[in-house]
Amino acid sequence: MVKPSNIDGMSKVPVQPPSGFRDFLPAEASARAALIEGITRIYQSHGFQQIGMSMLESLSTLQGKGGGGDNEKLIFKVMKRGEDLKRSLEAGNELADMGLRFDLTLPLARYCSHFRGQLPTPFKVFQIGPVWRADRPQKGRFREFFQCDVDIVGSKEIGSEVDCLTAILEVFNEFGLDGIEVHLNDRRLLQAIGNKVNCPPEQWQKALVSLDKLDKIGLEGVAKEWRESAALNESQIESLLMMFDNQSNTGDRPFFSSGDPATDAIVQDLAKLQTLLIENKPGKTQKIFVNLTLVRGQDYYTGTIFEIRHPALSGSLGGGGRYNKLLEVFGGPETPAVGCSIGFERLVLLLQEQGKLGDKASTPQVFFPLFSEELRPKILALAGKLRQQGLRVDVFPDAAKLKNQFKYAEDRKIPYVGSIGGDEAAKGEVKFKDMAARSEETLSEDAFLAKMISLCKPTA
Amino acid sequence: MVKPSNIDGMSKVPVQPPSGFRDFLPAEASARAALIEGITRIYQSHGFQQIGMSMLESLSTLQGKGGGGDNEKLIFKVMKRGEDLKRSLEAGNELADMGLRFDLTLPLARYCSHFRGQLPTPFKVFQIGPVWRADRPQKGRFREFFQCDVDIVGSKEIGSEVDCLTAILEVFNEFGLDGIEVHLNDRRLLQAIGNKVNCPPEQWQKALVSLDKLDKIGLEGVAKEWRESAALNESQIESLLMMFDNQSNTGDRPFFSSGDPATDAIVQDLAKLQTLLIENKPGKTQKIFVNLTLVRGQDYYTGTIFEIRHPALSGSLGGGGRYNKLLEVFGGPETPAVGCSIGFERLVLLLQEQGKLGDKASTPQVFFPLFSEELRPKILALAGKLRQQGLRVDVFPDAAKLKNQFKYAEDRKIPYVGSIGGDEAAKGEVKFKDMAARSEETLSEDAFLAKMISLCKPTA
Repeated sequence: MVKPSNIDGMSKVPVQPPSGFRDFLPAEASARAALIEGITRIYQSHGFQQIGMSMLESLSTLQGKGGGGDNEKLIFKVMKRGEDLKRSLEAGNELADMGLRFDLTLPLARYCSHFRGQLPTPFKVFQIGPVWRADRPQKGRFREFFQCDVDIVGSKEIGSEVDCLTAILEVFNEFGLDGIEVHLNDRRLLQAIGNKVNCPPEQWQKALVSLDKLDKIGLEGVAKEWRESAALNESQIESLLMMFDNQSNTGDRPFFSSGDPATDAIVQDLAKLQTLLIENKPGKTQKIFVNLTLVRGQDYYTGTIFEIRHPALSGSLGGGGRYNKLLEVFGGPETPAVGCSIGFERLVLLLQEQGKLGDKASTPQVFFPLFSEELRPKILALAGKLRQQGLRVDVFPDAAKLKNQFKYAEDRKIPYVGSIGGDEAAKGEVKFKDMAARSEETLSEDAFLAKMISLCKPTA
Repeated sequence: MVKPSNIDGMSKVPVQPPSGFRDFLPAEASARAALIEGITRIYQSHGFQQIGMSMLESLSTLQGKGGGGDNEKLIFKVMKRGEDLKRSLEAGNELADMGLRFDLTLPLARYCSHFRGQLPTPFKVFQIGPVWRADRPQKGRFREFFQCDVDIVGSKEIGSEVDCLTAILEVFNEFGLDGIEVHLNDRRLLQAIGNKVNCPPEQWQKALVSLDKLDKIGLEGVAKEWRESAALNESQIESLLMMFDNQSNTGDRPFFSSGDPATDAIVQDLAKLQTLLIENKPGKTQKIFVNLTLVRGQDYYTGTIFEIRHPALSGSLGGGGRYNKLLEVFGGPETPAVGCSIGFERLVLLLQEQGKLGDKASTPQVFFPLFSEELRPKILALAGKLRQQGLRVDVFPDAAKLKNQFKYAEDRKIPYVGSIGGDEAAKGEVKFKDMAARSEETLSEDAFLAKMISLCKPTA
């Protein structure tokens, strides 16, 4: 079936992945896998369970219904196929029928509706997987990246926020990332602030879009936009500046008094969340702030919102909030839900910069060079015995120059070598070499196997 | 930022994933994760190392260059965006610039070219991840599915085939799947057979497409197609039927004699591969056949080809082969390479049917009901202590009816419960309950913690 015309003599194809997409060398791939394994273990230790979801969604699921905000503009669309595509081209209709998911929250809401009646209440769930956004690629921003989400669906109390956030804080703690900040706010509080300065809803919406840029343009820049884009008057701006400038982050005094009991209850809940997090945060250097300027982009948040920040990073390391209305989009009853996500790529970046990105123990432990083709069966049999014991064993596949074979073992940093040449094979022996100690000894096959197992096997 | 108009009062969106795509309930998701973990460990024990690759590829990488065969017709294409899309629409050009990968082999060839000079030789590599094909969805065939590949790039000897196949056979052995068959053949041998019956290349290509359907239409059906589609003459057909009907699968006598020394060397290599696999196969019930009727669909194979089959399954459970020319497509020098893939979804299906799909130990071990909001800090603190010890601990997030909380713990099959009501809290005690034994005892907090750790922690 080889078509030489298809293989030879044609123009070269790209060796790079598409712009904004990445390949990973073995060391980084192993480190990422180890990190995912660690996060999985921590999420499970907090009582969350793993699910599996389709990575593609119907375009109608992704678009315009769930309030994905700006992310909706960044959907990678998958084209219709065959007759369906032909018809759509002729009729000038939408040419795509699916899209790559841009986050894990909207698909989770669909998932919970799909399996309604089959899930526990509350449903404590985690997911670690890729999402895609057609963002302009730039340093540290990719078009394919991983998110690590914890969510609790079906619980309305503040304990759910605590559960999600402590699980996430434990990840940072476990991997030795100091100085993490959690910023807390509530969408209803932002609404109450808008009411307090007598700002009509649409105008206030615009004002919040500006406030969301605080990190980038500063409070003065925000005020300028309030004046120019949102058309707030000077008295409104003055009130807002006072409120946002003087807010307390310590949580030990009322940071906002609305005079309205319902709003005050929200403020108290937020203060309580802060207290519970301070009491339960696993890392000593972790800081928990209430931050009234926090907005978050997604439309689907209805209550508490939070963001994880780190001093070494502009932008956030993660975030989340309550989305009590999102499941209704999929036809279900009102269902309270809250979730938080770790931006996996930024976590990797920070850990790399701090030299804290570990490697999983995935390097082979024992290496067998291949002296000659005739010796292959004997060597494969020995390797098989060690593999049965759970050891990681590499056999060189070709009877190549021994120098090259040993260089390969050194490059892969394999600690132990078992050499079997014709002499050794005849006597049932193995020449054992400890690559670090540069020591050699000749052992019987059985003694060699026993030594390898004792050196390599994790103690039971 | 909540736009009520966006959330309320609109048409419902689909709760199912797109056709051919799947969601997984927690039990199945955990079982799949455990299987992936097991395969990872086995591949590593055979000296293979993990890499990471982009899941999307440039359309030019996927199309027409690498010899993906029929799979190229099944590419999910990703639409261009913005101005680029507009220009292409106007000019009537291709509207897509990327595609979802349809296998892991073609991207691996690109990967090796991308990182040329940075990888060991030979490069023993494994990948476990999703691929996508726009196939017609049907029972057991999905549009998004996982593949588990091992490949050795840079080695031309038969030992590479042995390494890949024994690693894969160990997976089936470890998970208790009996009766696995490996069918071996060589593309060059198929070519030699064509030459032997004096069939010109294009005609022989057609004849092989028919032979590839042997499983579905039988040897008579194949002969019918040879007569009608490939226009072979009766004498050719008779020779072929004799050869394919009488082939030996035992490997203990020459199953094919060409009279041509180069071809005979290939036959001997295949027999040797069979012998090495028989000697090293980890499962006693595993059968290794040479099967001259094996074709495999992909154009990129240049030498040995193999397929994993199971009596309970129509179609294959995996397969692979040598693709010594594929890396040249990406501009590199001629590089020998061989790989084999497990069809993950079919493995899951078989294990499910045989009741051998295990569950990962991911259920919480300890459950704390929440008697009242006031007790939350105390309970969270206790839960935190157990989590620090690596235990999986679930706290109910709402102070809901206790009956509902205990039902939740039962449904999730959590074995141990620690109840702390007002009385217990005042005395610094915990009421411990063993859900299976239905026994209860009241313990001091310290005694409770010690008991939980001794019951739940894996022995060090």
